Amino acid sequence: MKIGIVGAGALGLYYGALLQRGGQEVRFLLRRDHDAIRDQGLRVTSPAGDFHLEQVQGFRDPAAMGQVDLVLVGLKTFANPHLAELIEPLLGPKTCILTLQNGLGNEELLARLFGAERVLGGIAFLCSNRGAPGVVHHLDQGRIRLGEFRGGHSLRAATLAETFRQAGLECEAVADLCKARWEKLVWNIPFNGLCALTGATTAELLAHGPSRAQVRALMDEVVAAANAQGLSAPIDAGFAERMLRVTEGMGPYRPSMMIDRQEGRPLELEAIYAIPLARAKDKGVEMVRVRLLHALLEVGEKTRD
Amino acid sequence: MKIGIVGAGALGLYYGALLQRGGQEVRFLLRRDHDAIRDQGLRVTSPAGDFHLEQVQGFRDPAAMGQVDLVLVGLKTFANPHLAELIEPLLGPKTCILTLQNGLGNEELLARLFGAERVLGGIAFLCSNRGAPGVVHHLDQGRIRLGEFRGGHSLRAATLAETFRQAGLECEAVADLCKARWEKLVWNIPFNGLCALTGATTAELLAHGPSRAQVRALMDEVVAAANAQGLSAPIDAGFAERMLRVTEGMGPYRPSMMIDRQEGRPLELEAIYAIPLARAKDKGVEMVRVRLLHALLEVGEKTRD
Repeated sequence: MKIGIVGAGALGLYYGALLQRGGQEVRFLLRRDHDAIRDQGLRVTSPAGDFHLEQVQGFRDPAAMGQVDLVLVGLKTFANPHLAELIEPLLGPKTCILTLQNGLGNEELLARLFGAERVLGGIAFLCSNRGAPGVVHHLDQGRIRLGEFRGGHSLRAATLAETFRQAGLECEAVADLCKARWEKLVWNIPFNGLCALTGATTAELLAHGPSRAQVRALMDEVVAAANAQGLSAPIDAGFAERMLRVTEGMGPYRPSMMIDRQEGRPLELEAIYAIPLARAKDKGVEMVRVRLLHALLEVGEKTRD
Repeated sequence: MKIGIVGAGALGLYYGALLQRGGQEVRFLLRRDHDAIRDQGLRVTSPAGDFHLEQVQGFRDPAAMGQVDLVLVGLKTFANPHLAELIEPLLGPKTCILTLQNGLGNEELLARLFGAERVLGGIAFLCSNRGAPGVVHHLDQGRIRLGEFRGGHSLRAATLAETFRQAGLECEAVADLCKARWEKLVWNIPFNGLCALTGATTAELLAHGPSRAQVRALMDEVVAAANAQGLSAPIDAGFAERMLRVTEGMGPYRPSMMIDRQEGRPLELEAIYAIPLARAKDKGVEMVRVRLLHALLEVGEKTRD
């Protein structure tokens, strides 16, 4: 399968590298890493074993990449206004687009731009960072849950999941992508925002009783909003507590939004906060604490400008 | 009147200087400013006119200050564990203690230490900063509302208010100190915490629609908690909106807690958040947003240690 990686940050580089090692023909759209990868290939460090790809197809210009079977989108959502120009040149008549971006609204945007029938979405549970140019660090996990934007099971979703599994990843195709996205938000909404705002790691938030209680209260708000969305089945009552325990197992983790703020990048506030808040409100659910958190994160963005 | 100033920061230095200029005998307990004031006196800059006191009685040791008629407490509340040793040496049989500290719980502590009959409290509406040693900058306002810890009107409260007015300050004696303290919290709880957490000034918070709405929502929570405390009369429905307009008039103000955080000092979380939250809860009122804000500020303190 020819796969084009659009948004080759820590996520795109890591998954693209695994897919290439697993036998797929991968083409990376690159900026920062272009020259390093051309000269030295792509190096992956991982607790599962480091590896190095000597020959990597890297491009600066999407027009030079040619048509692919699958576009894998790993772009930060604040760059979504560039999606049209970056993806258009890669599309043939049957090209699928799989977005592994954070939050809500990404599949809808891709569907408006390129047609709903092309679009799949996935949720990535991945801890990875970019290293020096040409190097990506895999820290932990990597599991993907993917599904059709229009819902239900499909042969192509099952085939994609199999392709990821052959590359060495845990991957499952799900019928209710919407539920999977909301489940991920139960983690992303509290931890991304609170860590970005306070500068505390996930472990520090959980070690302190009052902030741990607020993480849990934020999770409960998200679960209530999710369960008002008409999911195939509600998120169960024990889900939030399981997420807390999983997070404790991750140690002093720095969520992506915390790293974005520390490194002076914009935050993914639209996809992770504004759209979920609007979808909740549409169903009559006001997420009081989430709205406060969103407003405080936004103020930081305004004063940063 | 002999007045001892305990806690000679921006507030204590400014009020002490005005009282001395107004004819009172003022003795300052000093640390940082001791040598500068001994050598050069105390300089006040102010939009109302700068002035300079050449002879100032400054002390490093409270035991050297002698007994006074009034102890004026301007200490940051995080230093309250030192109140006993700092004030004890200044007390004669009839000495009154007036605390102008922030938040709740200060009068109660002084009453436990030295007897309720000695204690008055006041709310200072003052924008001032410390400058170089021996210099204090008055920026705006200065009004004081003071009253008996035990409530009601008294001759000594009226006399004290008159003393402050003679020094050039707006000052009124109030019968319901508890209400006055909660009214001040309607401002302090949103602005101190939000500015400390986000690094935005009051003007930046108010210029941005979503954060302005959160300031207002926090104010509404505090008003509801206040009005559950059995005040002499409820805080009226227009109070929060008036506070917003007053704050707009203050321009890009940096509340004391924001300055404390920027300068690496502890925050006054107990007096401004923990005790108000507990008093609200005692009356069955849960301040949801205030509790989230408090937890986030506390996390910053924990990770700072």
